[in-house]
Amino acid sequence: MSQTIVAVDAMGGDNAPLEIVKGAVEAVQENANIKVLLYGIEDQVKKELAKYKYNEAQIQVVHKPEVIATEEPPVQAVRTKKESSMVGCMYAVKNGEADGLVTAGSSGACLVGGQIIVGRIKGVERSPFASLIPTEKGFSLLLDCGANVDARPNHIVQFAQMGSVYMENIMGVKNPSVGLVNIGAEEEKGNALVKETMPVLKEAPNINFVGSCEARDIPAGYCDVVVAEAFVGNVILKMYEGVGLTVRKIIKKGLMSNLRSKIGGFLIKPALKESMKAFDAAKYGGAPMLGLKGLVVKTHGNAKAEEVKNSIFQVVSFKEMEINDKIRRGLCLEEK
Amino acid sequence: MSQTIVAVDAMGGDNAPLEIVKGAVEAVQENANIKVLLYGIEDQVKKELAKYKYNEAQIQVVHKPEVIATEEPPVQAVRTKKESSMVGCMYAVKNGEADGLVTAGSSGACLVGGQIIVGRIKGVERSPFASLIPTEKGFSLLLDCGANVDARPNHIVQFAQMGSVYMENIMGVKNPSVGLVNIGAEEEKGNALVKETMPVLKEAPNINFVGSCEARDIPAGYCDVVVAEAFVGNVILKMYEGVGLTVRKIIKKGLMSNLRSKIGGFLIKPALKESMKAFDAAKYGGAPMLGLKGLVVKTHGNAKAEEVKNSIFQVVSFKEMEINDKIRRGLCLEEK
Repeated sequence: MSQTIVAVDAMGGDNAPLEIVKGAVEAVQENANIKVLLYGIEDQVKKELAKYKYNEAQIQVVHKPEVIATEEPPVQAVRTKKESSMVGCMYAVKNGEADGLVTAGSSGACLVGGQIIVGRIKGVERSPFASLIPTEKGFSLLLDCGANVDARPNHIVQFAQMGSVYMENIMGVKNPSVGLVNIGAEEEKGNALVKETMPVLKEAPNINFVGSCEARDIPAGYCDVVVAEAFVGNVILKMYEGVGLTVRKIIKKGLMSNLRSKIGGFLIKPALKESMKAFDAAKYGGAPMLGLKGLVVKTHGNAKAEEVKNSIFQVVSFKEMEINDKIRRGLCLEEK
Repeated sequence: MSQTIVAVDAMGGDNAPLEIVKGAVEAVQENANIKVLLYGIEDQVKKELAKYKYNEAQIQVVHKPEVIATEEPPVQAVRTKKESSMVGCMYAVKNGEADGLVTAGSSGACLVGGQIIVGRIKGVERSPFASLIPTEKGFSLLLDCGANVDARPNHIVQFAQMGSVYMENIMGVKNPSVGLVNIGAEEEKGNALVKETMPVLKEAPNINFVGSCEARDIPAGYCDVVVAEAFVGNVILKMYEGVGLTVRKIIKKGLMSNLRSKIGGFLIKPALKESMKAFDAAKYGGAPMLGLKGLVVKTHGNAKAEEVKNSIFQVVSFKEMEINDKIRRGLCLEEK
């Protein structure tokens, strides 16, 4: 199998370049069939690289003097900072020098750059952020998690089709079920967009549409692919994080409340840690933007090395499973 | 202080009439200054009442032969089932025979009946469902939780003003902070509705607006009043329930995984139960619809007696604190 080349934004995110470089090193240590292009300020990146032993042929540093900050207006940042690490990665994918890219930097810049630099597959109207979310049954794919607000019904249909390809091929879920987020199971419920989208999804080819999915049922694993307009999708993703964090904090506080519970807390720690791993998204990598000419993976801003490594592996699976060819077929688009 | 009269829909919800009647009895047992009008099928309601000892002058059964089922189309149900328990309660409030009503029945019918039978305060454009949601700091008020999809900016401003009155007067939070749900803290983020609403909220009188509130920060208690368009608000509420439930299930599973964790689980049980009480919405009662001529409280469909009782007490606070007069002032409306 041919080598996968992954462009990695070494300067993006809260833990850059330290955790990003570490993740890249761990990825090449685990998989000899990857090459990582590390975009960033050369001496900073090389200083981090010097800490590790790895096959030097697998990592190449590409000097980019600029960095896009999280708070910068995305469109302007992507347009003016041509010499930034993130824009460098984008051009690498656009020019076919890399199969995909991984960044922990500004979501906004990542979205804008993905759409205007990397570019969409011909026929894909919007490129959604997708995210694997943990459920009682394993995981579901939620999209759009925040890329395209104010979507139209046909966009959501394409999200459903692309999400189905991803779940079936990358995650190995046969004939994944697709649900549209709604505020009730009844046919007449929903806002204008949902009411308009529902019949179009019912008729759409290449998806196993099961109808409305109430937000309450998402964590239970009601369907494999959860589609929503981006504002709603982002709220769902953030509620996952927020409620999960708060419940854990409250439990911890409870455990520290007296001696009996402290002892109990000590005894349950290993089992609890094990079962809470199910709620750790890092093992799946980052959020893929689907429908672009290469895979763009946005990790959390606070991503650690493990998430970066797994995001690099996402690009590998994406290439090896020929996802974009399958997306073209799923969306009934002409071949490239 | 004058007696508060509460109309209670004895036939609504999964546990009707058993838990509803029980909740009504507990309410009058705890507070001698309430009168409950129990609307429902007389012999069924009386059979339940016969189980308890209470001051009979405080509960009056009003016979209504019809029941609105959850799955009925709301507008039609409210229009045609004039002799239903829920519609009976609505007319009691409209006609001034009750200060408010409590129902665990169909949300849709409750919303429709609230708007077209009970009626809005003059000048209130939409009546939101509000819900107290638990946070790390205590609780926040989320509105609209699902009453008015496809809202306009001026509706959301009124939600913020009504929510502030409720939090300040019923929950005792001084100068409550108000946040608008958004998908990022940056000024330029959001969908069309949010971008349009933001400047209007900034200029709105009688609220302490603090800007965007990311969904992730809601469970941490970022602001006291969380306003959102109804579809988003409903998704937030349902994610609370769903994620909370799933995290608890996963923890329970973890605790049962081996002998050590089972013993630990036994030891932490009382402390955990205590701290998880923070996530139990029942102690706050149900979701109030604000801006109507009387208070309409929608409890969960699966509400037990405690939630029903506390919902009845919500109506009492509502009356005693003269919330509607304060809402008129908060919204700068003319006096009635």
